[in-house]
Amino acid sequence: MTYQGENSLSIALVHYPVVNKRAEIIGSAVTNLDIHDIARTARTYGVSRYFIATPYEDQRQLVEELLAHWETGYGASYNPARREALSIVRLVEDLDAAVDTLRARYGRFPLIVATSAVQREKTLAYRELGGRIRGGEPVLLVFGTAHGLAPEVITRADATLPPIKGGTDYNHLSVRSAASIVLDRLLGS
Amino acid sequence: MTYQGENSLSIALVHYPVVNKRAEIIGSAVTNLDIHDIARTARTYGVSRYFIATPYEDQRQLVEELLAHWETGYGASYNPARREALSIVRLVEDLDAAVDTLRARYGRFPLIVATSAVQREKTLAYRELGGRIRGGEPVLLVFGTAHGLAPEVITRADATLPPIKGGTDYNHLSVRSAASIVLDRLLGS
Repeated sequence: MTYQGENSLSIALVHYPVVNKRAEIIGSAVTNLDIHDIARTARTYGVSRYFIATPYEDQRQLVEELLAHWETGYGASYNPARREALSIVRLVEDLDAAVDTLRARYGRFPLIVATSAVQREKTLAYRELGGRIRGGEPVLLVFGTAHGLAPEVITRADATLPPIKGGTDYNHLSVRSAASIVLDRLLGS
Repeated sequence: MTYQGENSLSIALVHYPVVNKRAEIIGSAVTNLDIHDIARTARTYGVSRYFIATPYEDQRQLVEELLAHWETGYGASYNPARREALSIVRLVEDLDAAVDTLRARYGRFPLIVATSAVQREKTLAYRELGGRIRGGEPVLLVFGTAHGLAPEVITRADATLPPIKGGTDYNHLSVRSAASIVLDRLLGS
């Protein structure tokens, strides 16, 4: 089932493995507002699926309760627009599970594109990736929580997007802001 | 005092007068994450001042405590990057106070530009406004909390930016996401 304006882009928000400020591998806690804000932006830009990736059982239960509240609970009738945004959210254990879901859906592997606050290898320009999404290619765009994706996730990706620059040396956007800006650069009009 | 990359754009987040979903005039509560997320994005894009506008005494006290924590309290040493972002935040009672501050600083009135999720009159293109900011013109860009700015704020503005479209009919971005996208459209490279 698709919705009006839905495209071939999916996104994933990874909570493990990510890095802390000392570049150590950690798992992060799921944040309520990461789910809400990014779902609203994703739904605005026609994103097909928004995967929340966490292996932690307690965190998964929180996400399931939140989604149930908005899918069938009080939230669904109180705020239908929020329900609509959250309807694209899917809880998965890890990135592999998201990839498997998309492979089953499209009959091929999605192009996996990592995001990072620093310049990485295998860079793909925003304009080019936007064109490939508009052309119908299945793409999985991956965002990291905490201080960003672990190196193994970035290495495993097929490509990376250039970091977001705003004309200063300050480089500490929230993942909510970064996701909004990236989606607009790819698909905004 | 300015910082590397600082430009002539300031922004204001208005908590009164705004509208609720029935288009009634209300005042909204200040949200911790509105301050943090938007300050981080604003600092990334070289925004000069980020005004938090609320007339409510209890809300003003909360904002002052938050800013003190990050300016001189534990937060300042724990996370210097967050301190740097919050250093551009200024608490004001209303939009007039923000305008007065800028007028005193620049010796002239800033261009007041309102944002809205729907098309308004006196539209200014992103590209044009970005050029005027790069040219050094003092601009105050105004965002509304809740369901957006009250009509009187939009009427009073010199211009409005076009609503953000993402290729779907869904139109419910958080103000944090909207501010991120607008700043990138104006000043991103």
